[in-house]
Amino acid sequence: MKRYEKFAEHIAELIRTGVLGPGARVPSVRYASQAHGVSPSTVFQAYYLLERRGLIHAMPRSGYFVNALAHAFEPPMVQPAHSESTAVDVSELVFSILDSMKDPHMVPFGSAFPSPRLFPLPRLARSLASANRDMHPDLTVTDLSPGNPNLRGQIALRYRVAGLALPMEELLITNGALEALNLCLQAVTEPGDLVAIEAPAFYACLQVLERLKLKAVEIPVHPRDGIDLEVLEQTLERLPVKACWSMTNFHNPIGASVPEARKAQLVELLARHQVPLIEDDVYAELYFGQQAPKPAKAFDREGLVLHCGSFAKSLAPGYRIGWVAAGRFAQKVERLKLMTTICASMPAQAAIADYLQHGGYDRHLRKLRLALEAQQRQMLAAIARYFPRESRVSQPGGGYFLWVELPERVDSLQLFHLALAKGVSIAPGPIFSATRRFKSCIRLNYGSPWSARSEQAMATLGELIGTF
Amino acid sequence: MKRYEKFAEHIAELIRTGVLGPGARVPSVRYASQAHGVSPSTVFQAYYLLERRGLIHAMPRSGYFVNALAHAFEPPMVQPAHSESTAVDVSELVFSILDSMKDPHMVPFGSAFPSPRLFPLPRLARSLASANRDMHPDLTVTDLSPGNPNLRGQIALRYRVAGLALPMEELLITNGALEALNLCLQAVTEPGDLVAIEAPAFYACLQVLERLKLKAVEIPVHPRDGIDLEVLEQTLERLPVKACWSMTNFHNPIGASVPEARKAQLVELLARHQVPLIEDDVYAELYFGQQAPKPAKAFDREGLVLHCGSFAKSLAPGYRIGWVAAGRFAQKVERLKLMTTICASMPAQAAIADYLQHGGYDRHLRKLRLALEAQQRQMLAAIARYFPRESRVSQPGGGYFLWVELPERVDSLQLFHLALAKGVSIAPGPIFSATRRFKSCIRLNYGSPWSARSEQAMATLGELIGTF
Repeated sequence: MKRYEKFAEHIAELIRTGVLGPGARVPSVRYASQAHGVSPSTVFQAYYLLERRGLIHAMPRSGYFVNALAHAFEPPMVQPAHSESTAVDVSELVFSILDSMKDPHMVPFGSAFPSPRLFPLPRLARSLASANRDMHPDLTVTDLSPGNPNLRGQIALRYRVAGLALPMEELLITNGALEALNLCLQAVTEPGDLVAIEAPAFYACLQVLERLKLKAVEIPVHPRDGIDLEVLEQTLERLPVKACWSMTNFHNPIGASVPEARKAQLVELLARHQVPLIEDDVYAELYFGQQAPKPAKAFDREGLVLHCGSFAKSLAPGYRIGWVAAGRFAQKVERLKLMTTICASMPAQAAIADYLQHGGYDRHLRKLRLALEAQQRQMLAAIARYFPRESRVSQPGGGYFLWVELPERVDSLQLFHLALAKGVSIAPGPIFSATRRFKSCIRLNYGSPWSARSEQAMATLGELIGTF
Repeated sequence: MKRYEKFAEHIAELIRTGVLGPGARVPSVRYASQAHGVSPSTVFQAYYLLERRGLIHAMPRSGYFVNALAHAFEPPMVQPAHSESTAVDVSELVFSILDSMKDPHMVPFGSAFPSPRLFPLPRLARSLASANRDMHPDLTVTDLSPGNPNLRGQIALRYRVAGLALPMEELLITNGALEALNLCLQAVTEPGDLVAIEAPAFYACLQVLERLKLKAVEIPVHPRDGIDLEVLEQTLERLPVKACWSMTNFHNPIGASVPEARKAQLVELLARHQVPLIEDDVYAELYFGQQAPKPAKAFDREGLVLHCGSFAKSLAPGYRIGWVAAGRFAQKVERLKLMTTICASMPAQAAIADYLQHGGYDRHLRKLRLALEAQQRQMLAAIARYFPRESRVSQPGGGYFLWVELPERVDSLQLFHLALAKGVSIAPGPIFSATRRFKSCIRLNYGSPWSARSEQAMATLGELIGTF
């Protein structure tokens, strides 16, 4: 990291932690240069970077100021109405909503993906061509699951950089993270079993439970700190929970990231009850801070954490390449895969392996993170401009989703239909709950480059919200 | 089809139907030329082709003769010990056997795949490169299931050539046929339900049942005509069967192909009981006759047939691209797919679509069929040379498997281990049965180009069989 980047990160940290609040004046160039022993040009470069990242703005002849955020309040943690087990039946609603926003001309605030225009697809296509040109024919029938050895090696390397020494045998390549999560859940449960999930939860998690005929008990998620450990503990003591599914970093939809100490506690708590943790960590690479957040898996001593990752959100959406490090369940998960899809598509595996080795993945990720952070700031600013003052919004430290709690009078399913008619998609709160809660919440995707059209769409949403 | 090819096909048909038995003299060139009104050089070309296909051989100064086949008897149809429902528990055995033959230096008679050296992989890699070079980035997130429209169009076209006018909406691209079969079975059953399967059955079918916690009732399969309709009818009347899984063409492992009239009966019988038919038709393209066999789906009037196909056995093994035309269950199957793997890998889909349009698939298939037919003859001849006279063997009209019933004293699981130690893999009978029957049967794969090594391996097997 260069000197000016380091200094920019220092200021960004002050903004993130609230030391420098919205509208606050950033230290002047002269003061900062003296106080930190760096040259004025370093400070200028840093401030320029922060400006591009959407964190601060310059006022002529007055200096630099922290950008107005949305409302300073994050949404409160919602306690489930009753923390008993529920049969899950949400698919129809989810599908009808996903179907209705397929139109590519829609402003995709409801989308589950970041814009693929942020990804190096042409470079990846070159890897696809070169990695498959001379593939040995025999490999196509011998080299099935657990997957392409180069790709598994590259993934193991990335775990190692993050401080995790995983044995290669644990790693299985899957058709995206969703398959990994399906296989994991099936490996540790029987139909009818009870699974602790988060509220709100990613709707695909609800669908998987429904498909596998599992029951859910909802554990509330704090918008900053993630899953509520106290409620989880009480639940584990009271109910025969067979697995826990948690998104530990940049939670979809709420944005929470569990702090490291709490991750350790989570793992310890589950280990005490011998309950496997299915850790959905697909946004891990999309952090805005200085360092990748550690997965809960890093604190696992018993092989009880099944850690699922993916390249779909950070590099290669349609390639459908994810993976799982399934701890003591690795063999069971691999066999379930052999019984369903045998292996992930080999050309895609070879392409990603090649790209990771030669394509400049880390350089791409640095650019991607800066772009997402800037887009988040722009969407937060638009919320401040157009949404009612009582709205509350999450401010996640990564990913590409904002979770907005609108005034109670707003029905997000109605808002969804009204917005759709105006060419804007949103994800309404009830699709994120087994018990159809979060009636007045919406999830907004800031994963596309900000444009006048985005701004206009936010204004439209604001107007529609005003009609409630 | 050229004139000599047509004439060769006529003679091949006589051999296949037994009019010209093993060792019989083929009509002389002069006689054939006069009787059929073709030139002698056409007859020569035809006989040369038949020789290459392994059907006949020349004897100096005596003319052409039909090759000695293996034993003239096909194996008998085995009635299940009891046709009651059985919980399926065969995976451990199957996995231990599949694991032990992973060694690429093994002679792969036990393999489930044809040799990928028979496939146009370099040409396919060119399609992979060119079809993905300029893919529109937005497609990677909008163009999910049911799959690449070009590929679905090409598949629909092939159905149309076979006489089936399928609505495009029925077609879903999957991660290979095995995923299609899994999704179909899940779409039409609940855990604990009873499924009519074949005996013997492809072991993956048994594994899918086991995974979905379904029960099986075994219906015997005739080595030529396929599933026993009488037993099926009695079973449907007696037991609450929720689905029927059948491999209608070039059955794995037994080689049977259900004649058209019986396919119509099968569909009609199941429709009368409103039982869906899951038709596993992954070897459809590997026929040795003049025409592609029709699927049972061609006789379906009620949308009760879920027809599953794949490119894995005919073109692109590691690409993992299959499909299903799921009739009235199409939407349910698609939604199950969206809940598990979302969509099949896009680069692989685009590559195969491009290859089907520009690569010369039909030319490749013609070559592939000739190669497989010749290899079958060579393996049959080797069986005649090295196996005990009491052995019986199937003579399928397509695919790449022979089913051999050895003398009763032979334990095929023991034989499997003995052969493995000598560097030869085979597939022992019990992995093809929910009730571990077929103790003295083995499945042999003739999908690899025949070589001195293959010949030696057959001799080794013959010796080992002699030790029982």
